[in-house]
Amino acid sequence: MANFELMRRLAKDTGGKIVLLVMDGLGGLPLEVNGQTELETATTPNMDRLAREGSTGLSIPISRGIEPGSGPAHLALFGYDPLVYDVGRGALEAAGAGLHTQPSDVAARGNFATIGEDGRITDRRAGRIATEKGEAACEAMSAIKLPGVELTVREVKEHRFAIVMRGEGLDHRILDTDPLEVGLAPLPAKPWPEAADDPAALHTADLVNQFIAQAKDILKGHHPANFVNLRGFAGDPALPKFKEVYKLNAACMAVYPMYKGVSRLVGMDILESDAHDTPLDEFQRVADVWDKYDFFFIHIKYTDSRGEDGLFNEKVAVIEQVDASLPALVDLAPDVLIVTGDHSTPAKLSSHSFHPVPTLIWAPATHMRDRVTGFGERECMTGALGQFPADELIQLALGHAGRLARYGA
Amino acid sequence: MANFELMRRLAKDTGGKIVLLVMDGLGGLPLEVNGQTELETATTPNMDRLAREGSTGLSIPISRGIEPGSGPAHLALFGYDPLVYDVGRGALEAAGAGLHTQPSDVAARGNFATIGEDGRITDRRAGRIATEKGEAACEAMSAIKLPGVELTVREVKEHRFAIVMRGEGLDHRILDTDPLEVGLAPLPAKPWPEAADDPAALHTADLVNQFIAQAKDILKGHHPANFVNLRGFAGDPALPKFKEVYKLNAACMAVYPMYKGVSRLVGMDILESDAHDTPLDEFQRVADVWDKYDFFFIHIKYTDSRGEDGLFNEKVAVIEQVDASLPALVDLAPDVLIVTGDHSTPAKLSSHSFHPVPTLIWAPATHMRDRVTGFGERECMTGALGQFPADELIQLALGHAGRLARYGA
Repeated sequence: MANFELMRRLAKDTGGKIVLLVMDGLGGLPLEVNGQTELETATTPNMDRLAREGSTGLSIPISRGIEPGSGPAHLALFGYDPLVYDVGRGALEAAGAGLHTQPSDVAARGNFATIGEDGRITDRRAGRIATEKGEAACEAMSAIKLPGVELTVREVKEHRFAIVMRGEGLDHRILDTDPLEVGLAPLPAKPWPEAADDPAALHTADLVNQFIAQAKDILKGHHPANFVNLRGFAGDPALPKFKEVYKLNAACMAVYPMYKGVSRLVGMDILESDAHDTPLDEFQRVADVWDKYDFFFIHIKYTDSRGEDGLFNEKVAVIEQVDASLPALVDLAPDVLIVTGDHSTPAKLSSHSFHPVPTLIWAPATHMRDRVTGFGERECMTGALGQFPADELIQLALGHAGRLARYGA
Repeated sequence: MANFELMRRLAKDTGGKIVLLVMDGLGGLPLEVNGQTELETATTPNMDRLAREGSTGLSIPISRGIEPGSGPAHLALFGYDPLVYDVGRGALEAAGAGLHTQPSDVAARGNFATIGEDGRITDRRAGRIATEKGEAACEAMSAIKLPGVELTVREVKEHRFAIVMRGEGLDHRILDTDPLEVGLAPLPAKPWPEAADDPAALHTADLVNQFIAQAKDILKGHHPANFVNLRGFAGDPALPKFKEVYKLNAACMAVYPMYKGVSRLVGMDILESDAHDTPLDEFQRVADVWDKYDFFFIHIKYTDSRGEDGLFNEKVAVIEQVDASLPALVDLAPDVLIVTGDHSTPAKLSSHSFHPVPTLIWAPATHMRDRVTGFGERECMTGALGQFPADELIQLALGHAGRLARYGA
């Protein structure tokens, strides 16, 4: 983890501009014994040049052998040890939906579902209703009243929404109400086993059950979205903020809500985006506000999506698309440009994986050129950065940008 | 950090002799994209042979991305995590001046200054008076009496001196009295904000102000050294000692006071030296007492000085001078010879930097030869030692010397 105490002491609000370009699930595996990975297969003259001139290495997102989720993997890239800052999914979803939480709040993810006359779930996603229908259903649920609680309900996308409960004496240690299978009845909210006798947890579970009961009444006319399941109950993680710890004015350029959520939780401004933004669109949105920030986190989603779908060539194509657009970013003349992933998603596995992630740091004033000649998993194994914990990348970024004072005389 | 508990349990007072040769600020950067670093440019047949035969790697002095000061960087080389052992500059200066401190003492750095009739500082360094004049002024100040305090004042060099106050109820949390600019009045000593109401800190501040007032009286005839500023107030850091933790009789061969200071604080004997000693002189001084010690720390200052001055070729020349003298050290047949730096000082940056430091361990009985063919930054990236925290180097040294018992059966 970035040493926050040290960062607070050494970080300066002057120095170079940093761009952190994250291709989600960048790392891959060869399909055949003598084969190449997705990144090695891709034709990437721009990344190859940056890797050749700068420093490369492999980052370990969580811990050796551990397959990361996207939330923890991004926390690591931002300098937070994901084993220390165990941010609940509800908090990410709420933040991604644009809701601001306080440490005493309880947030959760909600799914619209379809429930039959017999009280059993027939569709856990309510036929993936259109986002506008989800918005109307959320609007209707705003009539729900819970004693002593200020409630916010916000549509995320299709059947997904987020809620935040604000009030005295709440506790997020509540089990999911989603039975996870159709044909089963929804589960009543109840505290985690270790909080079974905790008055705040019992009180919160009671409030959640009131919420679900009122929602069921209200949603009668919204078939197939006639019921809600809630999961991922979480408190606000009270993460130290980029400005306070690193003295960075930081902005997030991401298209998907979850990545906006984790960025908002660390205090970044969230730049305007559109679901159809290409990598080039994202880079141009960054260019538009280039003078306003010291640090830009740019997230590319589709490397991961194609990997998850097992589509090797399509993942290669996304990497090539990013590379072709990269000059738009390099032309902004960042002092430090980092290209990496949050974790690996080899098409071979159709899944996230534990493999360390190719990383390059290009910072003409300060980088140490290594002997690497291109950007790829095997090249990065011999690079100047070695293998390093992903949650120390931010220190390297600040160091390369000349934004840290000397430690000691 | 070296695991002190483990070292106390496993270290043996028998085994091989260790030499730790530190070229201050050794690591560098190329001046041009395709260029070589200072160490790579230097013709170093002797170091190249040691690197070829032995193990190489890169050491990280403090933490990734952090630019180290010399004090913390040396503590790391000696096995102390500099983030845990935050040794104040006053304690280093006093130790460097040959003063022994106890944990309840308060030490500080002093500067002779020139003060005008109007009570404002006109020269913060009193015209860099000759060391003999500083000695005379320190001698005069030995007449200062502080109630309940045993006071020691010792000249360091030119306008610099050190003081140690010994007594009951002292506290080192005192702000610097140096206004840092000419034309300003000196600052009265007062406690750190967080110790503003602490009786010991208030008492100590009062004593410091008495010291300064008496010094001003005494120094009237010593123009331009007619005043003193004090800074870097620090307690004795109570570092575990080499003999106790590592079972090493250790000696320090350094020319500059600060390096003698940090060595004294870890319990090394300080070998006689002269300000004009060359690397060869230093090696010969080690040869003179070769049989008396198990461990020699040898410090070469000028690699850092030339780097700080931005003099690439001159830094190269210092490295070559050390290399040419190296046979005198190798001929002593140490069991373990380590060549490294405390941090990087690239001439390109004219400053210390965060870059990891080339390191070689040559220990014919135990070293693992890697595929490295010479001593340089890029070579060391692929060496047997990998990248490692500098404060674990001492464990590697002891291990290579056969001075650690097996852990467990």
